[in-house]
Amino acid sequence: MDIARKYHNTLVKPEGSLGRLEDIAIQIAGITGRVKNKTDKKIHFLLGADNGIYAEGIASAPQNFTNFLLGYYASAQNCGINVLCNLAGVDLKVVDMGVIGVVESPNLMNYKLMEGTDNFAKGPAMPRHIAEKAIGIGIELAGYAYENGYQIIGTGEVGIGNTSSSSACTMAALLLPADETVGRGAGLSDLSFELKKKVITDAVNMHQPDPEDVIDILSKVGGLDIAGLTGLYIGAAFYRIPIVIDGFISAVAALLAYKLNPLTKEFMIPSHLSEEPGYKKIVEYMSLEPILNLRMRLGEGTGCPLAMQIVDASLKVINEMLSFDASVLEEETYKKNILGWGCGRKPYVTI
Amino acid sequence: MDIARKYHNTLVKPEGSLGRLEDIAIQIAGITGRVKNKTDKKIHFLLGADNGIYAEGIASAPQNFTNFLLGYYASAQNCGINVLCNLAGVDLKVVDMGVIGVVESPNLMNYKLMEGTDNFAKGPAMPRHIAEKAIGIGIELAGYAYENGYQIIGTGEVGIGNTSSSSACTMAALLLPADETVGRGAGLSDLSFELKKKVITDAVNMHQPDPEDVIDILSKVGGLDIAGLTGLYIGAAFYRIPIVIDGFISAVAALLAYKLNPLTKEFMIPSHLSEEPGYKKIVEYMSLEPILNLRMRLGEGTGCPLAMQIVDASLKVINEMLSFDASVLEEETYKKNILGWGCGRKPYVTI
Repeated sequence: MDIARKYHNTLVKPEGSLGRLEDIAIQIAGITGRVKNKTDKKIHFLLGADNGIYAEGIASAPQNFTNFLLGYYASAQNCGINVLCNLAGVDLKVVDMGVIGVVESPNLMNYKLMEGTDNFAKGPAMPRHIAEKAIGIGIELAGYAYENGYQIIGTGEVGIGNTSSSSACTMAALLLPADETVGRGAGLSDLSFELKKKVITDAVNMHQPDPEDVIDILSKVGGLDIAGLTGLYIGAAFYRIPIVIDGFISAVAALLAYKLNPLTKEFMIPSHLSEEPGYKKIVEYMSLEPILNLRMRLGEGTGCPLAMQIVDASLKVINEMLSFDASVLEEETYKKNILGWGCGRKPYVTI
Repeated sequence: MDIARKYHNTLVKPEGSLGRLEDIAIQIAGITGRVKNKTDKKIHFLLGADNGIYAEGIASAPQNFTNFLLGYYASAQNCGINVLCNLAGVDLKVVDMGVIGVVESPNLMNYKLMEGTDNFAKGPAMPRHIAEKAIGIGIELAGYAYENGYQIIGTGEVGIGNTSSSSACTMAALLLPADETVGRGAGLSDLSFELKKKVITDAVNMHQPDPEDVIDILSKVGGLDIAGLTGLYIGAAFYRIPIVIDGFISAVAALLAYKLNPLTKEFMIPSHLSEEPGYKKIVEYMSLEPILNLRMRLGEGTGCPLAMQIVDASLKVINEMLSFDASVLEEETYKKNILGWGCGRKPYVTI
């Protein structure tokens, strides 16, 4: 990263004047161990799971929308994420982590662990070993990306009720009240919004998850999509692949991965400023600065392909801009063997 | 725009959940009179001009950098704007509005009106008729874009000292003090920064430009690049082409165009949140919300190609996303003759 910063300062512009475009290129130099990089080969994982908390009546859409939508995404039915992945040249992989019922699509990656979580207002969302298994699946997905030569990973989700699970995880992990962590999800009335805050507060108070035990948080009040994405961040760090954070649910998983190992943050690139209050708390806590301000709240990971275009721009700048002293590059890192940094090994987690 | 909003609400997502991606597509529907649009053909105008205020010692680079850089941009020497225009498929047109000396490049559009403005700390920057002529050139450039089928316009500038002219214009137009409008430009020391604020404040106090007379502001404390871009915004509105605002200097021109005719705002799309304090005052005043947060302060219009990619995404969404009720489109506007809206005429300004 030091060499990349030094090289960036030789380009034909005032030092630092391309701001975050410089930072992202330098971050990726740190990830790969090379000053010049490409993220031409892009993959986006969209994890779907149902949430037992739906039974409390605090979601804005019918529960079977999860199954229905996941099938649509997997069958390339031009939902938001399909259109945006096409635009940005991103390969979309749709993963069933725990959707209720059979999802009808030939293109699905089926890792279903449960038929939706249990209702965390009544008891734990999932057994502890299932939470661990879901994290392991996320790590495996990063391995899939690595083995297929992908250079950047996006993180998406779908699951009716998953903003409730996400708010509960944020409350538990950051010890914050409902007013700072619960939002209206995809669109809730005032009455349902108040109920949502009460249900989640009561549940977190009942479970008292250990804020330092991520598996405890996930198993008591989490979701299978969140747990899978948590593993995906860990796997991305393990395989040294940059990974893009989408909105609230994706950021909750990033937070949990960060709590498991703070070094995972070095591999994360935030995309858009989500409208959900919990999202803002997480990026503050992790000192992340979103690059897009689009007032989006769709989910699916729709911020990721947009941010990947900015990442491409940041790499094109460092790769192609005119340098007044390209000799900085000659001293440097192409010779380094990044295999020696722990990359390229099989994951140590088995599932 | 009403029909576009109605149609957007039939797409497979919660209403409004794609935020600004929806707004931009709807804005462009209003501009063209069609629900579905493309901005495949993109042009970026980069206007260069020197500033007599340089003599006061408040710029961060030597004056001949303007000439030098403009030649580089025009000769596709992979400066920031060249790289980013290539990435986003944007045709770059480099315009000499008033650079000192001959700019050596075969690809330049030569509209040189003066060999740099006069020093506005001593007297007016330019005669009133030259300010008018520069605005006229900007309108002509929009006409060039229109006649060549361009569907979106970017606004860039280069000119050592042009943040000083821009701050002076902002102070004069919005009646704000130096602390809220003067920044460090491409990079100034503390001492030079204090001097810059004093020089600009004294100059604005001396000239007392009429805040309601844009030509008065431009001729007394403006720049030829700013005046040209002011005309470009007016021309974009006249020819009904969406136009992207870059950073501070470009935003000052947008403000002056808006003061000349508030309807010009309907054609403007802000790109990135500039670091300059005056920029923030302008977007507040005009109620514009930048979509990118990249801490960029390079100029050249480097925010525009990045924002154009987001615009492309917003159009791809409305054009391609699955609709649950596409019949909304059938009632509508393809039959409308946008020639009848005043578009397609020759400009009424002659230069």
